[in-house]
Amino acid sequence: MLSENKTAAILVIGDEILSGRTREGNAHHLAGVLSAVGIDLKEIRVVADEQPLIVEAIRALDSSLGGRYDLLFTSGGIGPTHDDVTADSVAEAFGTGIEMNEEALAVMRARWEARGVPVTGNRTRMARIPVGAKLIANSYSAAPGFHIGNTYVMAGVPEVFRAMVDAILPELPTGRPPVSESLDLHRGESEVAEELKSVAEAYPDLSLGSYPWHRDGTFGTMLVVRGLDQDRVAAAMAELKGRISA
Amino acid sequence: MLSENKTAAILVIGDEILSGRTREGNAHHLAGVLSAVGIDLKEIRVVADEQPLIVEAIRALDSSLGGRYDLLFTSGGIGPTHDDVTADSVAEAFGTGIEMNEEALAVMRARWEARGVPVTGNRTRMARIPVGAKLIANSYSAAPGFHIGNTYVMAGVPEVFRAMVDAILPELPTGRPPVSESLDLHRGESEVAEELKSVAEAYPDLSLGSYPWHRDGTFGTMLVVRGLDQDRVAAAMAELKGRISA
Repeated sequence: MLSENKTAAILVIGDEILSGRTREGNAHHLAGVLSAVGIDLKEIRVVADEQPLIVEAIRALDSSLGGRYDLLFTSGGIGPTHDDVTADSVAEAFGTGIEMNEEALAVMRARWEARGVPVTGNRTRMARIPVGAKLIANSYSAAPGFHIGNTYVMAGVPEVFRAMVDAILPELPTGRPPVSESLDLHRGESEVAEELKSVAEAYPDLSLGSYPWHRDGTFGTMLVVRGLDQDRVAAAMAELKGRISA
Repeated sequence: MLSENKTAAILVIGDEILSGRTREGNAHHLAGVLSAVGIDLKEIRVVADEQPLIVEAIRALDSSLGGRYDLLFTSGGIGPTHDDVTADSVAEAFGTGIEMNEEALAVMRARWEARGVPVTGNRTRMARIPVGAKLIANSYSAAPGFHIGNTYVMAGVPEVFRAMVDAILPELPTGRPPVSESLDLHRGESEVAEELKSVAEAYPDLSLGSYPWHRDGTFGTMLVVRGLDQDRVAAAMAELKGRISA
C-alpha cells in the first residue's frame, strides 16, 4: 500500500511474554489505534528484560538513533522492581544519564499521599527518568511514562498502557488513515487466488489480502482491500466482485 | 536464568497483525510449548508480507545463516495467494531455488481428490518449496510446512499452525524445562521490591519476576521464581516468603 504516513515499530519488553505465561495484548491494541490515525506500523518485536537486548532493539528501531522507523513505542519494564530495566536501557541507548525526575516524583507523591501511602525508596524508583525526556501522563495509576527522541516509553500493565496511549495520541504525527472493504466468501483461497492477483496487479497503490477461516465445520475466505483512497478501494472491490462472480 | 538449553526466535509474517485486524495467537501458543520442552524463546518479531523484510529477519535470527538463535520458527505467508511470499523469502534467505515439490504435491492431491476437489494451478502453488527443505506434515488441512537450515516454516491459520507444531515437536532439540513457583500477594509491587531484589541477588541462576495485577477494584502482585532446578526454586521461594512476612 502506497503511503506517505509515518512509520512505526512497537517494542514489547517482558520475560513473561516469551515464557508463554502472558498473552501479549498491548501491541494489538496500539496496532488498531495507529491504523486509525494513519501511522503505518511496520514491525513488532518482543525481547526479554535484559538491558543489552533492549538497547540494541531501540537503536535498531528509532530513526533518531539511526534506526529504521519514524516512531517507536515500547511496552513494559518501567515498574519498581529489579527486573524493570527499560528506563536504564533507554538512557543507555540515547547516551544520556538517568535522574530522579522531580515532576514525576511530585505527581506520584500527590497521588499516593492522598491515599495515605508512604512514598518509599522503591516507589520512587519509578521516577527515575532519562535526562531530557518528557513525561507521559498516567491517568490510571501514577507513575508516568516518558518520551525521548522518537521513542515513547509506556507501562506493560494493560490499563496503564492504554491510558498512556490516550495521553500521547494528540501529539503524534498522524497521517491519512487507510480505509478497507471486505468480502466474505464461502470458497477456498485457492479458488479466488487468480482473480485476487489480477486486481492486486491492476491496483498497485492498494493492499489486497486474503484470510482463510474455518468455523462450525465450514470454511471460507475473507478478502480485504485496503488503501488510502476510498474511491480506489471501492473500484478495486467492485472489480474483484465482478471477476469472482463472472 | 542460567541455561544450556537451545535458544529460539519466532517470526510472525502478516500485514493483518500489523494493521490491528487480527490479534496474533500463534506465538503465544508456541511460547508455551517451547517453555514446556526446555527451549529458550528469546525473541518474537512480526513483519509485513514483504519479501525483503522477511529475508532480512530470517538471516538475522537463524544461526545457520549467521543469525542469533539456534532455532527459528515462522508463522504465516505460505498460502496460495499473491501475498503469500514466505516460501520465496526463505529460498532467497538460504540462497537456494524453489521448486514444485513432488512429495508435497502428492500429499495435497491425495487429500483433495478424495474430496472431489480439482487440483488447480493456484492450489499447487502451496507445493512450491525451497530446494533441499524437508516437509512438515499438516494433519489439519493438506498443504505442508517445511524445514530448512534451522528454520521451521509453518502456516498462519491457528489450527494448521498447531498441527505443524505437534508434527515437529518430536524432532526438536529439547532441553531442560524450567520449573516455577508463584506467590500471589495483595500488596503493591513497590512494597516487596526490596525483598525480591535481595533474593534475586542471592540466586543469580534463577529468574525472579513480579507482575502487578488489578481486578474487581483491588490490586496485588504475582511473584514468580523460575529456574531449571526444582530445589533451588523452592529454596528461593521459601526465602522470599520468609523475608516478606518478616
